[in-house]
Amino acid sequence: MDLIASVLEGNRLSLARLLTQIENGTVEGRTALDALYPFTGGAHLVGVTGAPGTGKSSLVNTLARLYRNPPQADVPRRVGVVAVDPSSPFTGGAILGDRVRMRDLAGDPGVFIRSMASRGMLGGLAAATVSMVLALDAAGFEVILIETVGAGQAEVDIARLAHTTLGVEAPGLGDEIQAIKAGILEIADILVVNKADRPGVENTERALRGMLQLAHPTARVGSPHHGQADITSPAGDPAAKAPAEAPFWQPPILRTVATEGIGVDELYQEIARHRQYLVESGEWERRERARLQSELDMLLQAVLVSRWRQTVPQEAYQGVVDQLVRRDISPWQAVETLLDGHP
Amino acid sequence: MDLIASVLEGNRLSLARLLTQIENGTVEGRTALDALYPFTGGAHLVGVTGAPGTGKSSLVNTLARLYRNPPQADVPRRVGVVAVDPSSPFTGGAILGDRVRMRDLAGDPGVFIRSMASRGMLGGLAAATVSMVLALDAAGFEVILIETVGAGQAEVDIARLAHTTLGVEAPGLGDEIQAIKAGILEIADILVVNKADRPGVENTERALRGMLQLAHPTARVGSPHHGQADITSPAGDPAAKAPAEAPFWQPPILRTVATEGIGVDELYQEIARHRQYLVESGEWERRERARLQSELDMLLQAVLVSRWRQTVPQEAYQGVVDQLVRRDISPWQAVETLLDGHP
Repeated sequence: MDLIASVLEGNRLSLARLLTQIENGTVEGRTALDALYPFTGGAHLVGVTGAPGTGKSSLVNTLARLYRNPPQADVPRRVGVVAVDPSSPFTGGAILGDRVRMRDLAGDPGVFIRSMASRGMLGGLAAATVSMVLALDAAGFEVILIETVGAGQAEVDIARLAHTTLGVEAPGLGDEIQAIKAGILEIADILVVNKADRPGVENTERALRGMLQLAHPTARVGSPHHGQADITSPAGDPAAKAPAEAPFWQPPILRTVATEGIGVDELYQEIARHRQYLVESGEWERRERARLQSELDMLLQAVLVSRWRQTVPQEAYQGVVDQLVRRDISPWQAVETLLDGHP
Repeated sequence: MDLIASVLEGNRLSLARLLTQIENGTVEGRTALDALYPFTGGAHLVGVTGAPGTGKSSLVNTLARLYRNPPQADVPRRVGVVAVDPSSPFTGGAILGDRVRMRDLAGDPGVFIRSMASRGMLGGLAAATVSMVLALDAAGFEVILIETVGAGQAEVDIARLAHTTLGVEAPGLGDEIQAIKAGILEIADILVVNKADRPGVENTERALRGMLQLAHPTARVGSPHHGQADITSPAGDPAAKAPAEAPFWQPPILRTVATEGIGVDELYQEIARHRQYLVESGEWERRERARLQSELDMLLQAVLVSRWRQTVPQEAYQGVVDQLVRRDISPWQAVETLLDGHP
């Protein structure tokens, strides 16, 4: 098939066409993904999540440039960026984002950027993101940065799909942001305090360290460090410690000023170290399996519901909704009526 | 049944017990909701959604106090508050929020506040929120304020479940917030610029007005105003106007400083006017039907998936995941294998 061969060769126009078909949920897009799937699994998926105002986009930009022009003797990597934009399609949100990014990275064939609006996505945002990432993976992008606002359930679910997740914070964002941090802390492999030239950076870092302590009470929270497991059994039996040789990851806390490029080299190194940890510990395979199983479950759910819908006459369904509106039956009783023929 | 009668009588302890059972997804909770459902439908559901940092919680607090001590000759209303907190349960997020609120409203039997963390909710956050709201409705709370961070798909879905949705903004929150506004604008019935004593309030209001113009191009955007429909046909035929007597709602833009109580009386009046508009236009019934149908669909989806799971042996499912991990079959082919026995 023309499109598939062309995507595998790295043709940008074909890739863009495929991504549009994925967004529109076409059969052609689905068939192409089936054919491309055996060629996936090579990319390092890096989620970048954080509250609004933390400067995630700048960080993603700076990281992308660094993968293209790496420090030391590193090989440049092809970088894909999938920015999940919670705004609706009717504003310039996604388009503007692309334009700002394009200015820095335009013309580099080793970079491919796609913004997605979260509305009107057939089969859900997370499912569409997974498909986008598969396409970029098959097209040979070696690092795929997935940028999401870490403030909603769907967005956090997307972050979970990555191998390595960066949780981004910034000083001085107020109390409500604090609550959001908790969700990010649970899934972050690396914590980044961006805009670290702002006042209050010490407070932010201290708060993060405290919350990290709550989230991982047995870990020694601090600077980048990869010690041995230090997990005692719930009963406190010291003999129940994990084997001394098991690699163990403690989420480090890094400071960056993405717009100035400060601290970004260290972040780049830390991402590489996390990848190495994943591979050596066997966690890479475990995450791959969990990732693919989540994706399977999302698709199963969508297909089960759409198949069931086709079996129920519209009048029968609306009749049950009528009963629900009249308060004759409860929502659970309505489900039983529709699925079993009686409440 | 003891619990049900007790909740209907307004017993707070019984209501709290029921809400916990709903959160835990128990059979007792479900049975109680079935029995309580005929007693629901009386409450005015008001969604309050906005980006982090807009001061939603203060606004909800101030509104709750106003419903208890209303201006003019209004009757005090019993107020329920459901705060959907995106933080995970392991931090103090939800608990702290409750405590802060409790200080202002503690001891008033006409107020009931519940915070929900979004993780680990059986059957999904939106479904659990709907059940909580039903329980408060049956327990006689006349106004139910549902507070969500309007930055994620799930959160916006929750806001859609309300009769009246407030979209809350604040000056000076940066560009990323702008993108989020778009999603809120689509669903907001009333726009609130909170923290209106901050510099930049004119810019925020102007930006909102511009985006509102994009979202509702035919509306005359401006101060609170409830004119006649002004919708010309796509072809521009002036004879195709809506009937002159059809009530029409233009989302007004209001300024508040919730912490000082400034502008909140006007907001209170505007919410009342929106309720009146809903009832007079028939929109109340339409939203009730849409709301209940969404709820039914959420439950149907959850039940379909859980029933299907019970029919599939765990080994067969894991075998398909193995094939997926080996890249022998694609996710879509895995779905077909599981549902139809062949890819």
